[in-house]
Parts: sequence; structure tokens; C-alpha cells
Amino acid sequence: MSITTALMRMFGLRYPIIQAPMANAAGGDLAREVARAGGLGMIGTGSRATPAWLEGEWSKLEGAGPVGVGFMTWALDRMAEQRHLLTHALGLKPAAVLLSFGDPRPYIPAIRAAGAKVICQVQTVADAELAASAGADLLVAQGTEAGGHTGQVSTLPLLAAVLRAVADVPVAAAGGIADGRALAGAIAMGACGAMLGTRFVATPESLYHPQAKERILRASETDTELTPVFDLVQGIPWPAQYRGRALVNDFTQRWHGREEALKANLEQARQAYEAARREADFRTLAVYAGQSVGQITAIAPAAELVRQIGEEAITLLRR
Amino acid sequence: MSITTALMRMFGLRYPIIQAPMANAAGGDLAREVARAGGLGMIGTGSRATPAWLEGEWSKLEGAGPVGVGFMTWALDRMAEQRHLLTHALGLKPAAVLLSFGDPRPYIPAIRAAGAKVICQVQTVADAELAASAGADLLVAQGTEAGGHTGQVSTLPLLAAVLRAVADVPVAAAGGIADGRALAGAIAMGACGAMLGTRFVATPESLYHPQAKERILRASETDTELTPVFDLVQGIPWPAQYRGRALVNDFTQRWHGREEALKANLEQARQAYEAARREADFRTLAVYAGQSVGQITAIAPAAELVRQIGEEAITLLRR
Repeated sequence: MSITTALMRMFGLRYPIIQAPMANAAGGDLAREVARAGGLGMIGTGSRATPAWLEGEWSKLEGAGPVGVGFMTWALDRMAEQRHLLTHALGLKPAAVLLSFGDPRPYIPAIRAAGAKVICQVQTVADAELAASAGADLLVAQGTEAGGHTGQVSTLPLLAAVLRAVADVPVAAAGGIADGRALAGAIAMGACGAMLGTRFVATPESLYHPQAKERILRASETDTELTPVFDLVQGIPWPAQYRGRALVNDFTQRWHGREEALKANLEQARQAYEAARREADFRTLAVYAGQSVGQITAIAPAAELVRQIGEEAITLLRR
Repeated sequence: MSITTALMRMFGLRYPIIQAPMANAAGGDLAREVARAGGLGMIGTGSRATPAWLEGEWSKLEGAGPVGVGFMTWALDRMAEQRHLLTHALGLKPAAVLLSFGDPRPYIPAIRAAGAKVICQVQTVADAELAASAGADLLVAQGTEAGGHTGQVSTLPLLAAVLRAVADVPVAAAGGIADGRALAGAIAMGACGAMLGTRFVATPESLYHPQAKERILRASETDTELTPVFDLVQGIPWPAQYRGRALVNDFTQRWHGREEALKANLEQARQAYEAARREADFRTLAVYAGQSVGQITAIAPAAELVRQIGEEAITLLRR
């Protein structure tokens, strides 16, 4: 018996695995290695990515296989530079564009017209229904245990509810998935695959700083916090319903839950944050990571992870 | 192909389903109906349950099949009445005793000596390892999406990590599971079954007030909050790491995130809470429910739910 899902058919994949388009982690090297191994690679654009940066990362793909690009929908709404970047990205003919964190409807026609698949990542059932009716080709139900920015509902109940609510668009799971077990669980529920972020941060190919990767290897499943404090200190205007899950560090211990005090001391905190950035001091800087972080104890090449996680899931599903 | 798991063998069950021992919801009627249908029924003791109450509920079982009793470990530590209640419960010869929220080691020998299986519900990998090494017969990995009191880690990454860490004790999943899909997902990951709470609250047999059940039917997956405010106002000394997941209502909107202000106005808030209790006013009173609440749209008999969820899971796992 072999396993084939709607996700695999859509992109011609060997494994039902999408690598998350993590800002500051997912560049061309990571996307290429995932795509070569048979998953869907993704390049992540943060709020500061430029066309030149994207083009540089894209040039690393060397015809690897299907690769997409991810965008934050709220940033497309608010920033002309982001809309320009999307137009530029579509010119590169990506296999897919992933939209998350906002109303995708204004951007879907141009993406489809460019021949890319539309992937909408959603954090609630209402947003899943909106994206499905707007013509998304694929939904990703992202649970609160995911690393980076996410919503409030956990993957398992969100996935169950989205699968029940949306019958005609394939749904992948994201959040808390770092091994073949969890991937098999999502597929047994009816998902067409899973999107993994944190697991792919701890690879040689990810753009995270080596010390950030080290912190990920040391962290346990209880060492993350879903918090707005890193957005506040950096002045990134994320909508309030999306906070970022990061490793607990000195900065979260000082400010998380004390956001009013942080706002009252913002200039001082911002200077300290910028100083930490210059020194790559992750006692202060954000290390975005999900609750699967406790299972990640070694750096491993992305291509090897795709094969290992995919094969483990297939073995479990055959039992 | 039929499905048999370690949980089913341990208690002679038809389905790999445990009904959670929810305080103020899980009495003898609910436990009996679950057990008759082939699941493991449980009676829940709150911090105010008495031997007379437990005996009354136990008398409703009428030889239904395997039924256990649940205890809060921190309450056993702190309250002589709770330890007395445990001794009394063991005299009733339950099939199992479930311990959660604390170090189970002091209580395991007496439970085993009484011939009951020891079920330890855990919220972290460290607690899973402790319970396994202390001789638990079964672990329940409870995610943060569960209703009532719980920890911070979501079911999916917690289950994956516990299954990896503990090889020699069967592990069931709890939190976010209300249908056969999620049960199938947990079993595909390697769990021996699942414990369901919120789904069994919305039954004719549960002890929740009809208006509380009505609120559960109307709530969506985003309508819960993990909060200490109901413990604060009732003066129930839960350890800080365990907060209660309840439906958002006027009380949570007023006090959640403003716990210091609640403490400063405690006497007044307590009087208002007691008044709401007399009037069964759930704009103020806690309705504990998990994030699976959005999937629950009708009251259904517990026995029917056991069969329907069990059969749906078996069908999915056969595919």
C-alpha cells in the first residue's frame, strides 16, 4: 500500500510535507533541499523582505522542484512594498503562494492568474470557511502550538472542526508536528498532509543564527510563550489576535504579561533590543519556536528530515 | 480488521474511550451509560465531594461495567477530607483511580493494593516520566485545549513527546477530542485511546445545569479561555501551573488578565459569584469546556456517543 493525498497530487510530491515559510529562517537553501527530497519547499518573507532578497533566494533553487512563497496578509493590506513584493514573487512563477493572517480575498485573483496555487493558512473555522469560499486551493489549519505567529485554538480540535466544516478543499495541519507520528495522526484524521516549521529551523540550511538553533535543541515542550512582546519592541504592527510563539528568555520573563509597562518603557527597551541584535544575544532576541521544540534534539539536513518523517508516517499508517 | 488497544484490553472495553471524571458533571448516571456502551466510565470528585455523595453516585452504576474515580492530586496533598474520600472510594472497588495535577507517588501503593488500576493524567513530559517510573498502569497526556483544569502544552505535541519518552506504559490522549476523527488521529500516533470530557458534558446524563449545556451547544472553538479567575473567586487553591479552561462570559471578560484587580476586589466579587450560583446565572458562573466545544451542537445520550465516536474512529483507521 502506498499513500497518496490531495496535497501530494497537487504538487507532485513524494511526501505529504510542506515546509513552513518562516520569516528569517526559510530561504532558498532550505526550500531547495525540502523540494528535492519530495516535499513542498517554501520561502518566507518577513515584513522587511525586498525583491532583491527574494530574487537572490530564488536563484538558489536550481530547478529543485515545487517551491512556494509565503506572505502575511495583514502586511499586504498595510504596506505597498509588500504588495510590490507579491507582484515580483508572482513573476518568478512559484508553485504556490501561501497567505496567512487576514482576509485573503483581495489577493487570490492575481495569484491564480499567475498560475500559482493559493494556500490559505487559517487559525479559526470561520477563516477556513471564508478562504474556501474565496477559492483557496488548499487550507492549512494552524494550531496555537505552532512556532511564530499563530492563533488561540490547538491543532487537534481546529483540524477536526475545519475538516468537518470544509468538505471540498483539502486541508493540511500545522502546529506541533515535528515527526512522523504526528503527521500520521493528522492524515488519519483526514488531513492531506502537514506543514512543519520548527523542525526545519534546526537544519543546516535554515537562516537562523547558530545560537538560536542551539537554544532550540536545548528547549523542552514547556519552554515557549505565545506573546506580543517581540512585536511591540520591534514596532511590527501585527493585528492583536495573532501573537508570536517564541522560546522563553530573559526578555519574555521581563515583559510578557506586562505589556503596558513595556509600552511605557518602549524607547529604552527598543534600544536594548537593537543592541542585542548587534551582538546576536538571544537572551533578549526572539527565537520563534513551537511546542514541538522539545522533540528536536539535533540539527539534521532538511532533505533527510523530509524522508525520515515521511517514511515514519507511512509506516505508522500501514499498521 | 478489528482494533484492539492496550486500554481496551486493560478494562475489557469495546471502544478505546475513557469518559473524563469531570467535577460537577460526571456522576453515576454518566459513568454507567458510558460503561454500558463499552467505554470506561469515571466519576469525578471536586474539592467538595463527600463520601455520602460518592456512595450515592456509585449506587447508580448497577453493575454497568468498568467505572473509575478521579482525584486532584494537589487536593489529596492538602485536604484530609480528600484523602479520606480516596480511602472510601477504594472500598467501593473501582476499576481505576485517576490522579491528576501533582505528584502521584504517595497515593499509588494504596490504589494498587485495593486492586484498582492507576491512571495518571499528565500535562508535561517530565510528569509523564515521573508517573511511569512510579508505577502508573496508564498515562493520559492532557493538552491545553482540554476543558477544565489543564496545562500549557497542546495535545498533539504533548502526545508525540510522551509517546517518545515513555515506551513501556500505554498512553491515552485528552484535550480537543470530541469525535471519531480526533480519536483515530490519536490512535494512529500510537495512543491506546482517548479521554473525552466536553463531549460528555452535553449529554442528558451529565450533572451540568441545562443552561450550562445550552451555552456549550452555542459556543465556537474560539469561545474558551484558560484562566485562574474562577478559582480565585471561589477560593479554590489550585497550584499556579494549572488553570481552568472555561467558556468566555461576562465574568472572564471582566477579570481575566486583571487578576490583581480581582484579588483587590475579592469579597465583592465573591458575593456576586455566590449570588449568581443561587440564580444559576452563567453570565457569571464558570462553564468549563474545551476547544472541541465548537463541534458540539446537540445534546446526545452518552451511550450513543460512545458507539458513534468509537465506530467513526474504527472506520477511519480501517481506510
